[in-house]
Amino acid sequence: MNSENKHLTSDKKIIVLGGDGFCGWPTSLHLSSVGHDVIIIDNLSRRNIDNELEAESLTPIQPMGTRLRVWEEVSGKKIGFYNINIADDYDALLKVITDEQPDAIIHFAEQRSAPYSMKSSKNKRYTVSNNMNATNNVLCAMVESGLDIHLVHLGTMGVYGYGTAGMKIPEGYLDIEVETETGDKIEQQILYPTNPGSVYHMTKSQDQLLFQYYNKNDSLRITDLHQGIVWGTNTKETKLDERLINRFDYDGDYGTVLNRFLMQAAVGHPITVHGTGGQTRAFIHIQDTVRCIQLAIENPPTREERVMIFNQMTETHRVVDLAKLIGKLTQAEIAYVSNPRKEAAENELHVKNDLFLSKGLEPITLDEGLLQEVTNIAKKYAHRADQTKIPATSTWTQEQQPGIPEVREKDLV
Amino acid sequence: MNSENKHLTSDKKIIVLGGDGFCGWPTSLHLSSVGHDVIIIDNLSRRNIDNELEAESLTPIQPMGTRLRVWEEVSGKKIGFYNINIADDYDALLKVITDEQPDAIIHFAEQRSAPYSMKSSKNKRYTVSNNMNATNNVLCAMVESGLDIHLVHLGTMGVYGYGTAGMKIPEGYLDIEVETETGDKIEQQILYPTNPGSVYHMTKSQDQLLFQYYNKNDSLRITDLHQGIVWGTNTKETKLDERLINRFDYDGDYGTVLNRFLMQAAVGHPITVHGTGGQTRAFIHIQDTVRCIQLAIENPPTREERVMIFNQMTETHRVVDLAKLIGKLTQAEIAYVSNPRKEAAENELHVKNDLFLSKGLEPITLDEGLLQEVTNIAKKYAHRADQTKIPATSTWTQEQQPGIPEVREKDLV
Repeated sequence: MNSENKHLTSDKKIIVLGGDGFCGWPTSLHLSSVGHDVIIIDNLSRRNIDNELEAESLTPIQPMGTRLRVWEEVSGKKIGFYNINIADDYDALLKVITDEQPDAIIHFAEQRSAPYSMKSSKNKRYTVSNNMNATNNVLCAMVESGLDIHLVHLGTMGVYGYGTAGMKIPEGYLDIEVETETGDKIEQQILYPTNPGSVYHMTKSQDQLLFQYYNKNDSLRITDLHQGIVWGTNTKETKLDERLINRFDYDGDYGTVLNRFLMQAAVGHPITVHGTGGQTRAFIHIQDTVRCIQLAIENPPTREERVMIFNQMTETHRVVDLAKLIGKLTQAEIAYVSNPRKEAAENELHVKNDLFLSKGLEPITLDEGLLQEVTNIAKKYAHRADQTKIPATSTWTQEQQPGIPEVREKDLV
Repeated sequence: MNSENKHLTSDKKIIVLGGDGFCGWPTSLHLSSVGHDVIIIDNLSRRNIDNELEAESLTPIQPMGTRLRVWEEVSGKKIGFYNINIADDYDALLKVITDEQPDAIIHFAEQRSAPYSMKSSKNKRYTVSNNMNATNNVLCAMVESGLDIHLVHLGTMGVYGYGTAGMKIPEGYLDIEVETETGDKIEQQILYPTNPGSVYHMTKSQDQLLFQYYNKNDSLRITDLHQGIVWGTNTKETKLDERLINRFDYDGDYGTVLNRFLMQAAVGHPITVHGTGGQTRAFIHIQDTVRCIQLAIENPPTREERVMIFNQMTETHRVVDLAKLIGKLTQAEIAYVSNPRKEAAENELHVKNDLFLSKGLEPITLDEGLLQEVTNIAKKYAHRADQTKIPATSTWTQEQQPGIPEVREKDLV
């Protein structure tokens, strides 16, 4: 399979940190499919958090052993796997890197839910400790290995904050004018000043400082992908066999706004919009995510270049417009509830994503892809849903109340 | 004692995190002396690192038990003490805060040596993990306690980086002009973009993001002091009894440039300048440090204000000029060696410090204070020095060689 693609790429050895997760798994399959030699490192923390939250993927994801066996059956390609907590076991991480000598490492291995990061003091502390140590350990191991490895990191559009004051958000760096002591104005380019909206997002801002430093001091080659909210479930590769299916999270912590809307619609519940729904967010389909990561891998920076930052998103929407779009497809009603997050009620969002478009990305739009998601995922697996898990109950401060709507009997299927 | 000062201040209960260290100990005594109720939390990590490095303070510092007993004898005031690792034992930290209900917390509890942070992968990882978890734990505990506590944090001038392009470094925030999509220019004020020079300095940049976030989300009152290189050893209070004496570090990791110059001069060794010595740095005397912290404590921000940032320094000097100044006082020669750090060979540095000056700080200058340091500390305790510990041997990259000069017999006392 994919002999066509295979000719286009020079094969690389790639370690995928967090390769069992929502983005990591389809990325691993896609890179394997186009001819790269993929090795997954994952400590299965996302599955363990499912246990803790008593929530699970709507789609029936298989254990890693099954996933890898089926992938080999279907594609004839092997993917390696190590169960390592990279935030905690530096020596094991370093050994894999030294033994495998990868050309690239893709770093998904961070706690990635904003609501989960805000649930309690314990969750804040886990998120900061896990994410900082994971990223720093990878960077330290790259330096200590002495190998020239390209790191691709999954960051978030959320580091920019959502108040853009009429500016189009650039790709990572901002041109500014400052005044010197003699009153002259000089132009400088700086890391875009971040304004993260949760402890999770803040750790991604802190990651940027780690990348900037190790790039400057050790000439590490790093690409940081500032990703929008990912929607969709399956990719070309995960569709090849149901046992390769990707996660679909619909719970109040890990489910994105779109997935929770889809789930509510599928079970006949009103779609619950936080506040006015005037929050504007950036989106990308999971199929485009894996393509973008392939593009990033195949277009690495040189050792002389600074950290390369791409905005990995393809369209922006107001949350209320998404609710209406899904309402139209499914005849679901919309219910407005109080917002558990501390954020602006409404915002504009204009984002540059020229770098990926210039490299040939042809985005899948919500307009064309959303109906498939309703039919093939949300409705198909609705019988597996635990409806009590859909509302977002994690609040940003102790004073706030979660936006739980009244659930009336007639709303339920 | 200090009855005059005591009338000027309304007494507060203050927890000093890291109150056994070089800045923490004289700060604790000073605040106790002017009438505040002081409680120290420290895990003695600085003393344990002395054991690890086989280096120790030139001055004969006493165990914490002796220090506190002598302080009570001399001043009639009690200082409390808890041995807690705040990066590792959140529950113990939270319990002290909840039990003691402090008005303010002063946070010195971070690994604070740039060369130590660069010695090895292990040191980089310890510095990041310790400093991030310590700061985040304090912030989490403040939120979880529900108390309205003012946090004063010791940051560093080093977060700014040392290439200022003709600008005077402002106090934490930078006025910039950016262009909107319609071509209009708008003015914004942002956190000064950081350019840290070591893993240690980078953690202080990351701290800024933690402070900005918790201030925004939880309205925490925070003052961040961007401190220059501290010189001098004793303060009014530590001079009251030799058993209250403060640390004097002269080793290549924890000794500041000035202390190492003083030590070399005192033992008759040439003063070793890294590179050209054209690096310009900001300085402050330890007596001014403790006064600044008192001023910060007594001038807290409101819950509505953003993080208050002060530049805590009083003068700037080129390193080579310091070497010449000490050479003049001691007749020591100067030797130029290669620089183990990755940094600009020469830089200008202009810094605003209006906030502390406006609050009445009258700085001690190097010109007036340095001779005392030569006589009362470096020469007085020179017999305790291990000369092999003076050179800086920690390099910033694997390619660099430490700048160890040839030591000739005739150079040694």
